[in-house]
Amino acid sequence: MPIYKAPVNDTLFILNDVLGIERYHNLTGFADTTPDMLEAIISEAAKLAEEVLFPINLSGDQQGCRRHDDGSVSVPKGFKEAYDLYCEGGWLGLAAPEEFGGQGLPYTLHTAVAEYMSSANMSLMMYPGLTQGAIAAILVHGSEEQKRTYLPKLVEGTWTGTMNLTEPHCGTDLGLLRSKAVPNGDGSYKISGQKIFISAGEHDMAENIIHLVLARIEGAPEGVKGISLFIVPKFKLDASGEPAERNNVSCGAIERKMGIHGNSTCVMNYDEATGYLIGTENKGLNAMFVMMNEARLAVGMQGLSIAEVAYQNAANYARERIQGRSLSGPKAPDKKADPIIVHPDVRRTLMTIKAFNEAGRAFTLWTALKSDIAHRSDNEEERQAADDILSLMTPILKGVMTDKGLEHAVMAQQVFGGHGYIEEHGMSQYVRDARIAMIYEGANGIQALDLVGRKLAMNGGRAVMALFKEVGDFCEENRNDERLSSYTKALKKGLNDLQAATMWFMQNAMAKPDNAGAGSTDYMHLFGLVVLGYMWARMAKTAQEKLAAGETARADYLKNKLTTATFFMERIMPETALRRARIETGADTLMAPDAGAF
Amino acid sequence: MPIYKAPVNDTLFILNDVLGIERYHNLTGFADTTPDMLEAIISEAAKLAEEVLFPINLSGDQQGCRRHDDGSVSVPKGFKEAYDLYCEGGWLGLAAPEEFGGQGLPYTLHTAVAEYMSSANMSLMMYPGLTQGAIAAILVHGSEEQKRTYLPKLVEGTWTGTMNLTEPHCGTDLGLLRSKAVPNGDGSYKISGQKIFISAGEHDMAENIIHLVLARIEGAPEGVKGISLFIVPKFKLDASGEPAERNNVSCGAIERKMGIHGNSTCVMNYDEATGYLIGTENKGLNAMFVMMNEARLAVGMQGLSIAEVAYQNAANYARERIQGRSLSGPKAPDKKADPIIVHPDVRRTLMTIKAFNEAGRAFTLWTALKSDIAHRSDNEEERQAADDILSLMTPILKGVMTDKGLEHAVMAQQVFGGHGYIEEHGMSQYVRDARIAMIYEGANGIQALDLVGRKLAMNGGRAVMALFKEVGDFCEENRNDERLSSYTKALKKGLNDLQAATMWFMQNAMAKPDNAGAGSTDYMHLFGLVVLGYMWARMAKTAQEKLAAGETARADYLKNKLTTATFFMERIMPETALRRARIETGADTLMAPDAGAF
Repeated sequence: MPIYKAPVNDTLFILNDVLGIERYHNLTGFADTTPDMLEAIISEAAKLAEEVLFPINLSGDQQGCRRHDDGSVSVPKGFKEAYDLYCEGGWLGLAAPEEFGGQGLPYTLHTAVAEYMSSANMSLMMYPGLTQGAIAAILVHGSEEQKRTYLPKLVEGTWTGTMNLTEPHCGTDLGLLRSKAVPNGDGSYKISGQKIFISAGEHDMAENIIHLVLARIEGAPEGVKGISLFIVPKFKLDASGEPAERNNVSCGAIERKMGIHGNSTCVMNYDEATGYLIGTENKGLNAMFVMMNEARLAVGMQGLSIAEVAYQNAANYARERIQGRSLSGPKAPDKKADPIIVHPDVRRTLMTIKAFNEAGRAFTLWTALKSDIAHRSDNEEERQAADDILSLMTPILKGVMTDKGLEHAVMAQQVFGGHGYIEEHGMSQYVRDARIAMIYEGANGIQALDLVGRKLAMNGGRAVMALFKEVGDFCEENRNDERLSSYTKALKKGLNDLQAATMWFMQNAMAKPDNAGAGSTDYMHLFGLVVLGYMWARMAKTAQEKLAAGETARADYLKNKLTTATFFMERIMPETALRRARIETGADTLMAPDAGAF
Repeated sequence: MPIYKAPVNDTLFILNDVLGIERYHNLTGFADTTPDMLEAIISEAAKLAEEVLFPINLSGDQQGCRRHDDGSVSVPKGFKEAYDLYCEGGWLGLAAPEEFGGQGLPYTLHTAVAEYMSSANMSLMMYPGLTQGAIAAILVHGSEEQKRTYLPKLVEGTWTGTMNLTEPHCGTDLGLLRSKAVPNGDGSYKISGQKIFISAGEHDMAENIIHLVLARIEGAPEGVKGISLFIVPKFKLDASGEPAERNNVSCGAIERKMGIHGNSTCVMNYDEATGYLIGTENKGLNAMFVMMNEARLAVGMQGLSIAEVAYQNAANYARERIQGRSLSGPKAPDKKADPIIVHPDVRRTLMTIKAFNEAGRAFTLWTALKSDIAHRSDNEEERQAADDILSLMTPILKGVMTDKGLEHAVMAQQVFGGHGYIEEHGMSQYVRDARIAMIYEGANGIQALDLVGRKLAMNGGRAVMALFKEVGDFCEENRNDERLSSYTKALKKGLNDLQAATMWFMQNAMAKPDNAGAGSTDYMHLFGLVVLGYMWARMAKTAQEKLAAGETARADYLKNKLTTATFFMERIMPETALRRARIETGADTLMAPDAGAF
């Protein structure tokens, strides 16, 4: 049977000790984030994840969602009850504004908690996850009336949300989309078209589903400049704002897919459905990007979530599976064989995942904190600096953490040998579920292009320069601390590779953008390594300080942090040189062959 | 709809031009391997793969195998008919001895053909694949009577074979196995026990199933020294050698698993089933390793097979999918968007897979040729030298090609975006099928341990020294050929890393074997990179020679070889430095934490 235990202590170490969240008490909603309060909330979330969401994860995969002949969709057994408990606990609205029924707590805290929830049951958490995106878009671009009408219901989870972008012929390139909007004359529109891959598109857990749909108003310009965003509720609302008449939107099919079987991925048909413009006409992409950016951070975190639960199961199996003997002589001589965790190669596997997960958790929370600062600080300079880093990190977090999420789910599965390939241990599900996160909300190749094509040059490179300075200063400040020098030395080397690769782009990709495209994925991972290395160096520094201050209660935990940090610097950081070397080969070899030569 | 076209020209280039198979006409069975004959056979195989096996691959995945209440198992629709055509074509016995009904042709040719068959339908090809292993074991260890009784039926495919090693508590560590054999007094034994993960364990395509079963004869020594191998036919044979009375062996369940749904992976229950000892009492592992080594090469090839078919589909999709514009301006201005193959990052993805596939094909055929020489040459020195390389390459071929098989199936799937995640394009199947090859026939961590723990030191390092010399000599001989120097320079650098890492093991792992274990997986991949690089250098040399000789018919193909070789040397070979750096960090950091710290 699969196991899961939320890593509460690690989350608290990062929030309290590494990031020093208490220092941010001046931000809106941060006043109550004392260590005690954080621990109380996070432990409560852990309990829900472990005891309610996780037990129905494997069964949810096995049962999947079912579409009935009338187009209605049933979710797996237990999902509705678990979803209700999640909503009743106020988890959906944890960081939402109080005026719409939320708790107004930090987004950082929401993120900490969301990691656990997605570890426990990614498919189920996608339903409220999509709702979060809808809330964000309506908050930023909705009219006051739209906010009052939709937000309270979405925040309490009585209604859920969706994002409708993709059409059969159009995914990344939204300029090609064909869905149409025709004005009714009363301010509403008739929306028609087919959307595919719509997560949570139809289900039986909510009283209403609020579809946010990209469509083209009749006569709008071609391409992305003619796209608008519409609210299309499954049930139109009556005068009192309650769901009433059924709208002309329906689920035509559920996709048969590799994983996330517990989430209903729908083909949605809009047949002159009534929709309401949100934000400005033809500026739908701006509104959609509010959802998208939020969603990209959440998806990056899914990579961590799955890698974490897969890791825990692999570590547990490695401790329990008795097979063969240690290379250096029996370690459990009283037994017929040693547990396989005696083997260096099994430990290498586990420590690789652990090193990415712990740094990934820090990376995710650090980025979430930037988001809080960017949205809640009253100091404009601070807001801007945080927003710069947030924008820069979004594609890296999404791309790197989800690539690693799959890679590490596969590594964890490998520890189980043949038992990992059959479905009953759940390892196959983690791999199959993790796979989607590399694809949706912008495939990782698109994240890499966003990074090198937009984020690097944004505001004259202000964000990337600030980040280089922050990491460089950290190395410099701790250069003479011999307890830290092995970490900062390795980090500095990684940073040098990153800076050199960045310089190479500046010199070689301006005139020839293919040179940026050819190195984009390597660059994204190179950047990720440096940021994760920075997280490890900061965690190591904190751990050293705590140990030096004589902290005994967490001594083993803190020493283990140092060992894992050492592993990351020894084994993982040297990859930056390889990434840089690949980038510097440029695009010529790649672009030489005709399309037909592939 | 998925597509597949067997890469006949590439196979012929490798066999005829790179490996010069005609030079081996003195080996038994090689007399007929003229270019014309090879082309005829290989083209016929391609036709069967493309037209018969491939069309039922996706449907086979969707239908899976079904166990009925009486323990019988049905294979997917069309499998039996396709299997019959495969057998009727003589493909199963292509390389088997003529005296048992085979065609006695080279194993190298069998391997070339098997790549196509597994690309087209891996699940279906596992049934005859397991039979090949049974044939090999009986050929080497069976009595004359056993050979006469079983081989002709296995070679023609009327009966199929299985390998029964794994038990619920015992996989890698066969010393733990509990299945029992009790002598009947007439030379036969009563076999009892439960075996799991038995591929092709029960099905409705053959008249009989010949199970090769590891069990412990009552009173045998503990551990691996007390294991014997038995033939346990599903139906016992009557006096004329025809299947008659049902034996007490039955399929208790079919495993629900991630992929290879078309193959019946069975729990097999032996309940005092009649079995016949094969080979020597308590020497069962020797006999099993004959099957295992053969199977490891076949599984390594499955990695190539899946990566190839996944690649072809991704390349095809990239040419057809219209989405977005080239970074350097529209390439298809008459259309609404460019095909995504204009993007450097898509090309990087495709070329990475292509570079591994083409070198992997050469690696596989080169190794298969070593097997032919080792078994068929009349020159003992030549036999031994070939057997050395074969033994050394077996874990590398299995481990590297299957790790890359999954990695590249995932990369190919990524080209499809969301369409790769749904089942209808078949990309999910390739990923799910490829995953098993990293696990079965010895998980890849075991391959890496076999390499560093046994194969390196075998005969005082004779094999590895010979290989280093061969690659080093190649670099030296072509050092001054400026058309080749960029290839040989990169290869030489990789070889240096491999030699340094080998030296590091000699100095650091003798006294402390954990240092070998800690670097084993990196070493296996480092070795793989060098061998694949060697294949690329040889292919580039051949291509240069052909082009210099004015060969025009294949000019585009040959130039493309050179481009792909350049890509491999530029982008892939530099990974050797990273692998070496990791190896040289040793085991200390890994071994430091308690098991509970993971």
